[in-house]
Amino acid sequence: MPVAEPDVIAKLQKKEPAGFLLASVRGVGQVDFQPLLWTGVLILGSLWGAGWEYGLFATLGALSATAAAYLLGVDRSNIALGLQGFSGCLTGIALWVYLGNHGSTYVLTLVGAVMCVVINATLTAFLAPYKLNAMTAPFCIVTAVMVIGAPSYGRLWHGATPPAADPTYGGSGLTWSDLWRAFFTNVSQVFLVDEWWVGLVMLVALTLAGWRVGLFAAAGSIVGILVAWAFGAPDAQIANGIFGYNAVLVSIGMGTVFLAATAWNCVYTLIAAGAATALTASLTTLFDTFGGHTFTWPFNLTTWAFMAAVPFFPKILRTG
Amino acid sequence: MPVAEPDVIAKLQKKEPAGFLLASVRGVGQVDFQPLLWTGVLILGSLWGAGWEYGLFATLGALSATAAAYLLGVDRSNIALGLQGFSGCLTGIALWVYLGNHGSTYVLTLVGAVMCVVINATLTAFLAPYKLNAMTAPFCIVTAVMVIGAPSYGRLWHGATPPAADPTYGGSGLTWSDLWRAFFTNVSQVFLVDEWWVGLVMLVALTLAGWRVGLFAAAGSIVGILVAWAFGAPDAQIANGIFGYNAVLVSIGMGTVFLAATAWNCVYTLIAAGAATALTASLTTLFDTFGGHTFTWPFNLTTWAFMAAVPFFPKILRTG
Amino acid sequence: MPVAEPDVIAKLQKKEPAGFLLASVRGVGQVDFQPLLWTGVLILGSLWGAGWEYGLFATLGALSATAAAYLLGVDRSNIALGLQGFSGCLTGIALWVYLGNHGSTYVLTLVGAVMCVVINATLTAFLAPYKLNAMTAPFCIVTAVMVIGAPSYGRLWHGATPPAADPTYGGSGLTWSDLWRAFFTNVSQVFLVDEWWVGLVMLVALTLAGWRVGLFAAAGSIVGILVAWAFGAPDAQIANGIFGYNAVLVSIGMGTVFLAATAWNCVYTLIAAGAATALTASLTTLFDTFGGHTFTWPFNLTTWAFMAAVPFFPKILRTG
Repeated sequence: MPVAEPDVIAKLQKKEPAGFLLASVRGVGQVDFQPLLWTGVLILGSLWGAGWEYGLFATLGALSATAAAYLLGVDRSNIALGLQGFSGCLTGIALWVYLGNHGSTYVLTLVGAVMCVVINATLTAFLAPYKLNAMTAPFCIVTAVMVIGAPSYGRLWHGATPPAADPTYGGSGLTWSDLWRAFFTNVSQVFLVDEWWVGLVMLVALTLAGWRVGLFAAAGSIVGILVAWAFGAPDAQIANGIFGYNAVLVSIGMGTVFLAATAWNCVYTLIAAGAATALTASLTTLFDTFGGHTFTWPFNLTTWAFMAAVPFFPKILRTG
Repeated sequence: MPVAEPDVIAKLQKKEPAGFLLASVRGVGQVDFQPLLWTGVLILGSLWGAGWEYGLFATLGALSATAAAYLLGVDRSNIALGLQGFSGCLTGIALWVYLGNHGSTYVLTLVGAVMCVVINATLTAFLAPYKLNAMTAPFCIVTAVMVIGAPSYGRLWHGATPPAADPTYGGSGLTWSDLWRAFFTNVSQVFLVDEWWVGLVMLVALTLAGWRVGLFAAAGSIVGILVAWAFGAPDAQIANGIFGYNAVLVSIGMGTVFLAATAWNCVYTLIAAGAATALTASLTTLFDTFGGHTFTWPFNLTTWAFMAAVPFFPKILRTG
Repeated sequence: MPVAEPDVIAKLQKKEPAGFLLASVRGVGQVDFQPLLWTGVLILGSLWGAGWEYGLFATLGALSATAAAYLLGVDRSNIALGLQGFSGCLTGIALWVYLGNHGSTYVLTLVGAVMCVVINATLTAFLAPYKLNAMTAPFCIVTAVMVIGAPSYGRLWHGATPPAADPTYGGSGLTWSDLWRAFFTNVSQVFLVDEWWVGLVMLVALTLAGWRVGLFAAAGSIVGILVAWAFGAPDAQIANGIFGYNAVLVSIGMGTVFLAATAWNCVYTLIAAGAATALTASLTTLFDTFGGHTFTWPFNLTTWAFMAAVPFFPKILRTG
């Protein structure tokens, strides 16, 4: 996709005032490998013509991904060529097609676009030794995770049948007792144990090893609860720690072992903890089809993805 | 599998007159890691003894793969040791066992043997940093794709039940209207849009970016239609662009971005476009089992496979 | 996970007398990335508190994995930090949770812990170029294989329903005729042929290529029969060679091509042959869900895993 005449690249690197909008439009054309502005304009126009929702979600996806790339500090000339926006553009369209025009789909488009930028960096790192390009694989991965996972989450799923994981969805909601039990079982479920006091002892054991360790474990547990609640995961499963133990592991690992102690790294770690939580439903659905189990796959996969992506985000710093 | 006494290798590199046949027979023995001619002869003989169809498909597979390796310019001494024929040999046998003795199975054996040579190169590239050997994995991958995909294609599937994707198979066939709609929707489906005029506008946008871009997009679309029709994909899905959009992307990407503008590269690109089309049914079946979707996976996977294999095919040249 | 103050590491490398036990306890804490002894003690204590079976299987898993790492010659300071025990610990717990407290589960915990050490080395090799850590992925992989495969094996499965692959389980057992047919069909099934005399001819062809080749083929076939019988695979499938052909290939490949001729390598090869046999049921279950087949995947995957791990086991030596 690095197809552009030298003078185009030169102009792009001058940081045009309207650079952000131009990069987003170029992102639409880059789905078809084209950085030419007019190609992007024409394709985006035809999408709006095909239906306003096609146009709107394509635009939102491309804008969000491009903005996320700026925030994460991705190389500017790469952004300007539209190379960060195209998977976000496709993700927006696909989420609308498969999940419908609901408030939650707009949020997922935003979140999905950010994840496309991360996964693009991940795949670029993995494929570099083989001189291969990530192409639209970030879109394929991010959208697959979301579309497969959505039916398990009450607030994301608006289909005719109730959410897959929770036939009782729409009940009384999380109670205070659910919340504090979840906070501790998120720690104990790392060892497949559903006992809040075991989680409490483990949290003490972790704090003994270092106050930062205990802090990140607790923060991961809270992020796990927040994301699972926001997506509408089943109350009982949240209370049992099913949705939060991967967030705890991601948070300890990235927060205290793999990344340096900076504010940016902290934000990056908590985003990863949230991503691991969200990933739980998709993987559970996947493994269910052949009798497998989720175990700590969300933790491992998310940590690998976010850590492999680090070299492309100058604000995020590895330890050592 | 590089087991051979030095003098054997020396002899092999002298390009014996009967080199092609000897290499194919050695390919049968290489399934069991043996380059010795008599081991190959004895094993091949026992296969013919087990049943003429075992012998015939094993022979066809080994011959086709060895021939494909010659055509693609694979290193001669590697071919002579039988290292290009063994996955083709197994592919021939397995296609007969799972798809039956039909005209289409002979064609698939030929196609599958070619794909084994490509995927062998792909895996060799991916595994080289870890000093691992591709072994029989090309056979496992190629045959899996074909056996899983075949029930979706009317002309490849001769089972008792009708093709999976098309209960109405055996209808009136593709009409002229289906064909031109497919030509354009193959371009618009890249963005999940099923509107021929959107595809037309996008084709114009691509041609604006360069006449070669427009040409390869159109060529990819035609290859997509041809392969889907030849395999007997459902008419309605061909007309809606479901089988062709990946071929369009492969054709633009490999034809105008990743490979130089040569005749050999053009042929290689169009073969890849056809492979992406054929791959669509298997991936759709796979993703269906857990609620996923095909998206642009056939494009990404096929392009990665064909591009990673390039270093082993001296006639195929990367850009830059 | 290499989090430890320099003085702790220094002490650990002094090879404390109780080093093996301390390393195992540290392994429990390393599930949460912590090498601190007291963190491990507290967590292990809470597991015993949660239920004696939690505590017992966690302890057995951590001890077995640590012992296996010593036997395989893994770097001592790495072992001392608990970095070899944590996946084994989790594997023990998960096998008890999903397969129940039976004699066979104790054996699987031991076997699984050994496999965790191997797969940890494999993943470490694969992830090193990307500066990623294997984390708990060995646990996820090994336990998934065992839990998905167990329902196919009569001696491993104690659920209410009979073993998946064999509704007639509990019959008369393997006869002498089954055994010698299995010995030969294990060789012929490499080519998808279920004829004992074809296997005999092929064994002759292999011996022709070298007596060691014939010997390892025969040894692989015997290991395949032993493991399949010990796990309680269906008699008819053992006799038809379904469970043994991958062991034959692993044994020839690792025994005569990839590894040097030493006693340690021979043991390592035969363990790999057994692993490939055991892997057959899981992969068959996996591929069944979307209409795929096992082919020689167990051979390829097992050989890749065991060979990629070699650099971490100083007693195992590659050829060349």
